[in-house]
Amino acid sequence: MTDADFSLAIHGGCGVLPRATIPAAFAADVRAALAASLDAGATILRAGGSALDAVEAAVVVMEDAAVFNAGHGAAFNAAGGHELDAAIMDGRTLEAGAIAGARAMRNPIRVCRAIMASGDFLLLQGDGADDFARQKGFAIVPQDYYGTEQRRQMLAEMKALAAQGATARANEAQKHGTVGAVARDRHGNLAAATSTGGYTNKPVGRIGDSPIIGAGTYANNATCAISATGKGEFFIRKVLAHEISARIAYLGQDLDKAARDLVLVELPEWKSGAGLVGVDRSGNVTMPYNTEGMYRGVVTSRRPAQVAIFED
Amino acid sequence: MTDADFSLAIHGGCGVLPRATIPAAFAADVRAALAASLDAGATILRAGGSALDAVEAAVVVMEDAAVFNAGHGAAFNAAGGHELDAAIMDGRTLEAGAIAGARAMRNPIRVCRAIMASGDFLLLQGDGADDFARQKGFAIVPQDYYGTEQRRQMLAEMKALAAQGATARANEAQKHGTVGAVARDRHGNLAAATSTGGYTNKPVGRIGDSPIIGAGTYANNATCAISATGKGEFFIRKVLAHEISARIAYLGQDLDKAARDLVLVELPEWKSGAGLVGVDRSGNVTMPYNTEGMYRGVVTSRRPAQVAIFED
Repeated sequence: MTDADFSLAIHGGCGVLPRATIPAAFAADVRAALAASLDAGATILRAGGSALDAVEAAVVVMEDAAVFNAGHGAAFNAAGGHELDAAIMDGRTLEAGAIAGARAMRNPIRVCRAIMASGDFLLLQGDGADDFARQKGFAIVPQDYYGTEQRRQMLAEMKALAAQGATARANEAQKHGTVGAVARDRHGNLAAATSTGGYTNKPVGRIGDSPIIGAGTYANNATCAISATGKGEFFIRKVLAHEISARIAYLGQDLDKAARDLVLVELPEWKSGAGLVGVDRSGNVTMPYNTEGMYRGVVTSRRPAQVAIFED
Repeated sequence: MTDADFSLAIHGGCGVLPRATIPAAFAADVRAALAASLDAGATILRAGGSALDAVEAAVVVMEDAAVFNAGHGAAFNAAGGHELDAAIMDGRTLEAGAIAGARAMRNPIRVCRAIMASGDFLLLQGDGADDFARQKGFAIVPQDYYGTEQRRQMLAEMKALAAQGATARANEAQKHGTVGAVARDRHGNLAAATSTGGYTNKPVGRIGDSPIIGAGTYANNATCAISATGKGEFFIRKVLAHEISARIAYLGQDLDKAARDLVLVELPEWKSGAGLVGVDRSGNVTMPYNTEGMYRGVVTSRRPAQVAIFED
């Protein structure tokens, strides 16, 4: 890599449908959406645009795609509604913006960016977040914009499993789902963005790791940018993304080593399904996951866009 | 210190009334409430109880005291209401519980403890948090339970300053206020707890650092327990409490050095009013702040309880 190279890595969550049962048409939709997301981000980066613009654009595409659990396609909570979490962070300034428990904004990551720009506050929840989106002129949608038939079916399945005390038997797609992007631009700046509907049948009001700076989302030009997916409560307890940054900064580990130690060794000890995408200051990318698969993609100035679901 | 010693440090926020104008009766009330909080926690620790029980008990006393910005005495937000944030963390297991934007629970820190015990989720916001409190049988209060005449006056002052575009002229007490406690028990376990009403005239829905694990609240037996107070957005961006933990773990710094570097050097560079209480695995305590004062107290198995407001 040279200083003028760029990198973009994205994920559509480690909550993939089981390999044995994933419909071919669904997998094709996933691959197309991942490719469109990479293209949106790479177009910006190729032209010398900012990592921040690139991760926002990449995430917007995945929020709008029905196949991912974020924006349109968000998971249903226990009350049959949708509450969205998201965050964006600028590795150059360590500025960030985030929303939690939002119920009406169409594109949470755009609103996060506007919150970051506002400067005064960083994280808004509930009606306060949606009112901010309204005041700033962002697209507002009814709750049923988020739901899809597939997600409604997952809610019914999860409620049935919960009634049997058997939520442990849920598949990864029923439990997880998030989208995220990390980038390093041609100027050496890093950024991270994450957006999610949380897990299916989550309690009303539950906030996961995605909007928590240092847990599911983090970017710092001195170290790395991270966007995580999986059982968020564990990531909050590990302060996952900042922990990776700290091991790079203070132990001299490289990004891949730090990320793999957490995702492939330490989080499995807690029985936590987990995955992440990360990029370091030199543009090196890592995409570890400990689940059956992770919807993901990567493109750099030296490597054509590639998308994947399983180890294929 | 020996392995069987205990330590407890508390703060009632770095948003103190200016030394020149603080009423003597108010200062006396603050000192009495700090002493009662220390006593509640130390009674548990002296008898061999857990750090977790001690920080919860110490914070409950401060939530109930009208002089601090948490529970009764919480700051008014821009809509003239109250939204509370809080978190508790167990350094032994890295388990945690937190609430954000709660509007009806009397003692947020008790509810955080119950969320932690529930195991499944970690952070609840808004009605979901209050509904959880109701279901678990915790005391529910009307919004006007939180407000005090002093806090209402601060709201009027902040709105007047905001109308003049002069919020920078607000005093520390108008801007900040939080309560928190950290402890090391006789068994070597650490815990941290933080509770706040946020800042006066905050936007509806704004979440600060207090309920963010790794930002305003963090505990890890391997390193330290931290509870912070001040401009929370900066602490989230710095991942303040976990940053201190990481410098201890990976740079071999002692708690006091790590905490002072952040509070007295790095946060002032961001013009962030800040303070914190911290305790390390050996029971050493630190209480740095960069504001005019910080309501605070400390007691250990070898040192009688002491409370302070300024450098006195």
